Amino acid sequence: MSLLVVGSVAFDAIQTPFREAERVLGGAAMYFAVAASFFTKVNVVGVVGYDFTARDAEIFRRRGIDTQGLERAPGKTFFWAGKYSADFTDRTTLATDLNVFATFNPKLPSAYRTSPYIFLANIDPTLQRSVLKQVSRRPKLVALDTMNYWIERTPAELRETLRHVDVLLINDTETRQLSGEHNLLRAAAKIRKMGPRTLVIKRGEFGALLVHGDTVFAIPGFLLDEVQDPTGAGDAYAGGFMGYLASVGKHDVKSLRCAMVYGSVLGSFTCERFGPERLRTLTRREIDARARHFAKLTQFSL
Amino acid sequence: MSLLVVGSVAFDAIQTPFREAERVLGGAAMYFAVAASFFTKVNVVGVVGYDFTARDAEIFRRRGIDTQGLERAPGKTFFWAGKYSADFTDRTTLATDLNVFATFNPKLPSAYRTSPYIFLANIDPTLQRSVLKQVSRRPKLVALDTMNYWIERTPAELRETLRHVDVLLINDTETRQLSGEHNLLRAAAKIRKMGPRTLVIKRGEFGALLVHGDTVFAIPGFLLDEVQDPTGAGDAYAGGFMGYLASVGKHDVKSLRCAMVYGSVLGSFTCERFGPERLRTLTRREIDARARHFAKLTQFSL
Repeated sequence: MSLLVVGSVAFDAIQTPFREAERVLGGAAMYFAVAASFFTKVNVVGVVGYDFTARDAEIFRRRGIDTQGLERAPGKTFFWAGKYSADFTDRTTLATDLNVFATFNPKLPSAYRTSPYIFLANIDPTLQRSVLKQVSRRPKLVALDTMNYWIERTPAELRETLRHVDVLLINDTETRQLSGEHNLLRAAAKIRKMGPRTLVIKRGEFGALLVHGDTVFAIPGFLLDEVQDPTGAGDAYAGGFMGYLASVGKHDVKSLRCAMVYGSVLGSFTCERFGPERLRTLTRREIDARARHFAKLTQFSL
Repeated sequence: MSLLVVGSVAFDAIQTPFREAERVLGGAAMYFAVAASFFTKVNVVGVVGYDFTARDAEIFRRRGIDTQGLERAPGKTFFWAGKYSADFTDRTTLATDLNVFATFNPKLPSAYRTSPYIFLANIDPTLQRSVLKQVSRRPKLVALDTMNYWIERTPAELRETLRHVDVLLINDTETRQLSGEHNLLRAAAKIRKMGPRTLVIKRGEFGALLVHGDTVFAIPGFLLDEVQDPTGAGDAYAGGFMGYLASVGKHDVKSLRCAMVYGSVLGSFTCERFGPERLRTLTRREIDARARHFAKLTQFSL
């Protein structure tokens, strides 16, 4: 079933201990869409500027991603610059130029309005809600990502949006911030009272947690010989997670567990190369092989 | 098969956000021995002072732990004082009074010299090696723990001791420090060249990793509703790990994976109450139930 993502498409300037680059294709919606495209049909709503070329758009075209919702606006594309510490444990944001993203007002092409699966990437919660208002048929599953900025600046708007969401995917720091609770189990319980029945807590190199009903499921991080660039890994995680669910058309506990694995697989591949490079060459066969590898990484019999 | 542990028995003064106490039974060998006693016969070598009473010794007697190797020396028992931060992410050491532990020179009673399983808890690597010299029959498995102090202060002695060890159990920070390598896979490869064929990397709330031959196995941390006191959790992990291996009498990959689970189970129980309180009331039935819970926490089928 088709999957709609609404969020940023950007150019990133990235500094890692290995490499620096000034203009790397980025943005949550880009990483999400490419990751999800290995599983299902993906539709993108976002905005780019005059500097976004046909060559930049190739990453979507090659993966069969529908970009009729990718609006072109006068101005420059959203720009983010960041620098990683020597061991990738810290990231410093050096610049955030919203550019055309400052006035982004997501408009769903009519073909997108019946999307059964929706992912609202990290944008203003009021805009996230406006997307849901444009939907003409009740979606099967709505998932949302957010960040500290919205948790701090627009808590009431975020709370209102969360009421309409099935799955919240956020990192552990945001989980603690949103709930005001350090203990993750208690934090999850508080957040699930805000609306989302399902919570996916991304923990970077330490893996991810699913809290859903009485189920707690934990997947460890996949150990890489070398992390080249973690940019976009969380968005690719969400893409693998939602892409898998859309491909199976259900979200029972068994499917959610598998979705956690595929999310981790896509996140781990993303870290192997700079920007979205690894996602450009990735194949479904490699994805499935790593999913089996995850099984080996975690299996035991008492 | 019987399991020998050599290490500290101590009194701890612990400050947590929930509770403070001045004289809590502690020490690596104590936590290890009690945790391991749920699986196998445990023999302890250590030293205590005049202030260690029959009532303190009860924790060993109740669990059927052999303490003929627990020497009594003139002076006070090793004393450690520490304070945890509000969310348990930081621990500050407030005092370390070695007392009788300063001149500790482990002597194995003759009955201990044929121990097939040996755990050298965190003490001076020269003393750890002296234990191995007293063994009259080649042990089936020797495991060792160490800490930043020895990695920094006595690197040559530690390296020499590591040559005689099968399993190294240390935390992630120590893994990085000992190897001079941030990436854990590469760190593990370097450390395994120093001697230990098997490396267990303890990651606190994030679980633990096993690196053995071509196998990498990861177990997530067990999420508790409330952590009361993490003191001794790493030692209890080691006790569950080694106790299980001694109980099955083998250390193939399947057994090592299970040992990781039982280590995690014992570590998680330890955090539930203050000091060794939870270990005093724990039962094998509860341990097995939580091991099955770990299976639910991690299982998926693609």
